[in-house]
Amino acid sequence: MSNPTRATDLPVVVVGSANADIYVEIDRLPKEGETIAARGGQTLAGGKGANQAACAGRLSHPTYFVGQVGKDAHGSLMKDALSSCGVRLDYLNTVSDPTGHAVVMLQPGGQNSIIIVGGANVSWPILEDGMSCLSANAQQIIREAGIVLLQREVPNSLNLEVAKIARSANVPVILDAGGMEGPIPENLLKCIDIFSPNETELERLTGASTNTIDEVIEAAAKCHEMGVKQVLVKLGEKGSVLVTEGLPPILQPAILAPMVLDTTGAGDTFTAAFAVALVEGNSVAESLRFAAAAASLCIQVKGAIPSMPDRNAVLQLLKSVCSSAD
Amino acid sequence: MSNPTRATDLPVVVVGSANADIYVEIDRLPKEGETIAARGGQTLAGGKGANQAACAGRLSHPTYFVGQVGKDAHGSLMKDALSSCGVRLDYLNTVSDPTGHAVVMLQPGGQNSIIIVGGANVSWPILEDGMSCLSANAQQIIREAGIVLLQREVPNSLNLEVAKIARSANVPVILDAGGMEGPIPENLLKCIDIFSPNETELERLTGASTNTIDEVIEAAAKCHEMGVKQVLVKLGEKGSVLVTEGLPPILQPAILAPMVLDTTGAGDTFTAAFAVALVEGNSVAESLRFAAAAASLCIQVKGAIPSMPDRNAVLQLLKSVCSSAD
Repeated sequence: MSNPTRATDLPVVVVGSANADIYVEIDRLPKEGETIAARGGQTLAGGKGANQAACAGRLSHPTYFVGQVGKDAHGSLMKDALSSCGVRLDYLNTVSDPTGHAVVMLQPGGQNSIIIVGGANVSWPILEDGMSCLSANAQQIIREAGIVLLQREVPNSLNLEVAKIARSANVPVILDAGGMEGPIPENLLKCIDIFSPNETELERLTGASTNTIDEVIEAAAKCHEMGVKQVLVKLGEKGSVLVTEGLPPILQPAILAPMVLDTTGAGDTFTAAFAVALVEGNSVAESLRFAAAAASLCIQVKGAIPSMPDRNAVLQLLKSVCSSAD
Repeated sequence: MSNPTRATDLPVVVVGSANADIYVEIDRLPKEGETIAARGGQTLAGGKGANQAACAGRLSHPTYFVGQVGKDAHGSLMKDALSSCGVRLDYLNTVSDPTGHAVVMLQPGGQNSIIIVGGANVSWPILEDGMSCLSANAQQIIREAGIVLLQREVPNSLNLEVAKIARSANVPVILDAGGMEGPIPENLLKCIDIFSPNETELERLTGASTNTIDEVIEAAAKCHEMGVKQVLVKLGEKGSVLVTEGLPPILQPAILAPMVLDTTGAGDTFTAAFAVALVEGNSVAESLRFAAAAASLCIQVKGAIPSMPDRNAVLQLLKSVCSSAD
């Protein structure tokens, strides 16, 4: 970014899910008791937590991933994918449950049926008040973070604990709304700084419609009432808008891609790139532009983690967009 | 085994499939476009080729596995599982296609729906006459084998080539009928020594019914007409029968297990244990008993490869069965 005024190397700490995404391409779903052959298949590293950590790592910002995987091949897949993006795994637990995974049955016409196995992502211990799921070292890295990223593929209780630890150390927290669909506990919303849903998630959580920007801004205001002051809404090809209580909303149009190949991971890329730009001392408006550029590059490559851009690619796209706007 | 008269350390060479079996436990199948949560899931090393190699390895007989896996986490899973059973992987290819895998959707009431991704198991090159899919070294280990095991989860063309190489070196070949359901090429049946279907496979291939032992023996005789002189039929809890052209059939009752937990891999265990006993110089009748004991132990433990017994366990079971028969 140009002239960061409060640049910092404080790490991005992502607490969340690591998931093996098992894609199978089929002509139709099998019936009960039936065996069918797939046209093809591929297993890729995914999960919203791992995606966001991979994105921040690819952008060359110091990044830690706090999560759980199993003692299995899918755990190795996740470790290799994150390491190769430069993500530090010092606080990744290996547990007896299987690594979280999802079977994604791709069908003609773009219909996907998905079976999710929560596994290690949801096997965090549920402890009584005052006890912690997290090791002392993991708690420490959260306190020392420049920013903490959460999503909704691990138990609410873990997210709440992380948000409280971060708040006690004045570390900002972004909660991405993606993941489980259940209601978000109000005490969690009150402990985070920025809540980031896409338009569908915003609609589901507030019950308000989100067809126009004005409706989106109104729905975001309902989140303010729930206790979170800043709402960053991802609107896909319509861009994004940051709605802060008491301030005018900031709109960021999408940076259109010449060719959209696969939008998987674009939301995670947007959220993580925004966090990286913010922690490096950029303004909110600058950070939104940086995130839009990263997401635009992500959708031009297949896959989630394989499509995440490095910093140079993002900076070059921003430069070319600026010069063409001149 | 007691007093092997022609004991040999010539290796068992298994040519076949390696497959990651991805089990997900669900209440019902998802609909198109639907995402559901599984109650649990587990990914285990499997595939009929790998199962048979693992069994021979666990029985401490020198064993080579010739097959293909991808450069992916499931490939590592297979290599680790086979190595830990003592199987030599010198002739295992690593290819660009994904490791073969199967999504097994376990539903209440025992109904399973399965999606198979052939991947590396079926990506062997199809070559013109006179060319080989196999490296010179892999061809050599087949010629030096004490016995070769084939199944039907790799292309017929590969099985045929292996059977021809083995026959040219007077190495006996067992073809297990399990795997793909299509007809078996007659030239393949003519190149093997023992054909081993279960009763369902025998029925499907011959069109004859297999409800009684007499019907099974009649159906096996149809296989003789197709060109294979020895047919080893696996009958589950009814045991097994070896039907050799021109000789009286040899019946081996099942060795009943005190508790049947999981029959997965029992057929592969039977075939591989029979091959190990045979190559070590035991009579056909002795080898059938050895195989029955191994299969009986296999069904008392969950999983395929994890349930395969070591030699001591098999010998102890045989001893206890003999003494109780005294």
